[in-house]
Amino acid sequence: MARPRLHAVILAGGAGERFWPASRQKHPKPFLEIADGKTLLDATVDRARRFASKDCVWVVCGADHAKGVRRATGLPAERLLVEPTRRNTAMAVAWAAQRIAVGDPAAVLAILPADHRIPDTKAFASAMRRAARAAREGEALITLGVKPTRPDTGYGYIRVGKPAGRRWPGVRRVRRFVEKPNAARARRYLREGGYLWNAGIFVFRADTLLEELARHAPEIFQSIPRGKSAAAIARAYEKAPSEPIDTALMERSKKIWTLPVTFHWSDVGTWLSLAEELGVSDGKSRVLGGELLFDDTGGNLVWGGPRRGIALLGVHGLAVIDTGDVLLVTKLDRSADVRGIVARLKKRGRSDVT
Amino acid sequence: MARPRLHAVILAGGAGERFWPASRQKHPKPFLEIADGKTLLDATVDRARRFASKDCVWVVCGADHAKGVRRATGLPAERLLVEPTRRNTAMAVAWAAQRIAVGDPAAVLAILPADHRIPDTKAFASAMRRAARAAREGEALITLGVKPTRPDTGYGYIRVGKPAGRRWPGVRRVRRFVEKPNAARARRYLREGGYLWNAGIFVFRADTLLEELARHAPEIFQSIPRGKSAAAIARAYEKAPSEPIDTALMERSKKIWTLPVTFHWSDVGTWLSLAEELGVSDGKSRVLGGELLFDDTGGNLVWGGPRRGIALLGVHGLAVIDTGDVLLVTKLDRSADVRGIVARLKKRGRSDVT
Repeated sequence: MARPRLHAVILAGGAGERFWPASRQKHPKPFLEIADGKTLLDATVDRARRFASKDCVWVVCGADHAKGVRRATGLPAERLLVEPTRRNTAMAVAWAAQRIAVGDPAAVLAILPADHRIPDTKAFASAMRRAARAAREGEALITLGVKPTRPDTGYGYIRVGKPAGRRWPGVRRVRRFVEKPNAARARRYLREGGYLWNAGIFVFRADTLLEELARHAPEIFQSIPRGKSAAAIARAYEKAPSEPIDTALMERSKKIWTLPVTFHWSDVGTWLSLAEELGVSDGKSRVLGGELLFDDTGGNLVWGGPRRGIALLGVHGLAVIDTGDVLLVTKLDRSADVRGIVARLKKRGRSDVT
Repeated sequence: MARPRLHAVILAGGAGERFWPASRQKHPKPFLEIADGKTLLDATVDRARRFASKDCVWVVCGADHAKGVRRATGLPAERLLVEPTRRNTAMAVAWAAQRIAVGDPAAVLAILPADHRIPDTKAFASAMRRAARAAREGEALITLGVKPTRPDTGYGYIRVGKPAGRRWPGVRRVRRFVEKPNAARARRYLREGGYLWNAGIFVFRADTLLEELARHAPEIFQSIPRGKSAAAIARAYEKAPSEPIDTALMERSKKIWTLPVTFHWSDVGTWLSLAEELGVSDGKSRVLGGELLFDDTGGNLVWGGPRRGIALLGVHGLAVIDTGDVLLVTKLDRSADVRGIVARLKKRGRSDVT
């Protein structure tokens, strides 16, 4: 029997509404080129290719974006899992595990959200390989745990337990998952140590995942499409529950281990976190497109269209995001609320600007 | 002898750089439609026509804008005084007085900057007629004095003196002109009374003006073009001093009277003063063009291009001025410094964005 292979499953189903107006329903966050000179999706594929061979890279995405994903990645249709309806990550992961297991029963899967930023691809690939070994041999669900560098209240945390075993150096058991904490609690976690950021990056054997789903999330397990026909998939998704894999399974299973890592990772969740990624600070602005003609104060994030001049006078701590048809000016520290603007506009039927 | 007529001389030579990026070298402030549904120039012509007959309306402007002014106003070429070089208001006024006096030796002139806002055109016309009578009979230079409504530090002030005479009710002598005061002084002026804003709107007989210029500003008087040929005008302007009529003459002549008025007047000097004109206040934004998709805080002035959606999150006291090729975001209370941005860009040779 061939050695089971390590597959990369890229989840490109998210909308990234907090990146509005740059991200739109038709042009979501993975397609944005917000750092490192390539789109987040392209960067994720590059990362995957560091540890997964070409025919072991898969993407799960919505029907709206299948064309865009294929154009960007060059993936063949059979390695694109096109969801007829958005059903959050539990279904996406479950379907991928089942589909990959058909051709590679002992496959190991690495689940990679398509909208994260991890500049050190080498360290990342090495972590994936170590996690894959632990997952394969230990039959555990491994979640990547990033060592916190600040008391971030935007991430979930992992309380670290005992070492998983001598065969898998560094890998630890998970004592529990903690939802996004308040500021005081986040500071305590950072001070005390023993807590990691839950990066939403998972590594497991397909069979382990399917067994654990059957045990802890039977409604997800039963919703996995049983055939490859569009009708079978549509039928299955129609009634499938919409839940993140974190709450559907990771917080319930007893087989959760974590691999702590120290490389830089960000889910680039908001304009504020992008500003931080790009080094915006007091007195220092960053420009993504457009020409900054004047900026006397600094500390702003500017996203201008091509051939556009932008002048900022007496302002700081702002994101100025200009997509040609829409302009957003927001306090960076309010940028988590951009999602609320999108929700409101959608409610008003404004698909032209969302 | 025909009764001397009242002429309106509209000064459209200013650049209005503090209205950048909406105002440009090629498209200065008088051409902007910033209130009342028409351009400032059109509104000024409308105001002039309330007290001056059609063939008594004149415009002084730069060569760059002659075409635009003619298109906007429909004035015949002979009533357009096209300055080959910008030389501030003293030269513009002097030239207009000399040119009009040739055909109407006892003409009375009302000097109207093309970029002010005076919504009550009826009250304005009535004031112009009263000022014209006093100027004609009293052979005085009349300056319009606006009753202050707030301790504005952006205007020059007039210290009011004794009544000019029983024949001209309301008209007062001027004790002195006061340059833009600091905040404490402006508050004192408002409290004490007896001070008016110098509106930069003047009424005088052409012959009085020319005599007073000859006496107090001979270098201006001697620079007045002696012929109508382009060469003669260019020659005269070449060496002409560049000075405002206020300092060149009004602050020196002993024949200055003022007509105090109480109607609303603004020179709309900055984005801040426009915001005040339009009623921007805490929690209330105003939009000039574009669609405000979202604005949770208010207190902003928004100038968007057509078919553009603008969303503001957590910001207030801003001007967001979007002209398609250039976007300015400024604190409203810093908007007097916009001129500095323009100066800097010009220094860098950026005629493309100025």
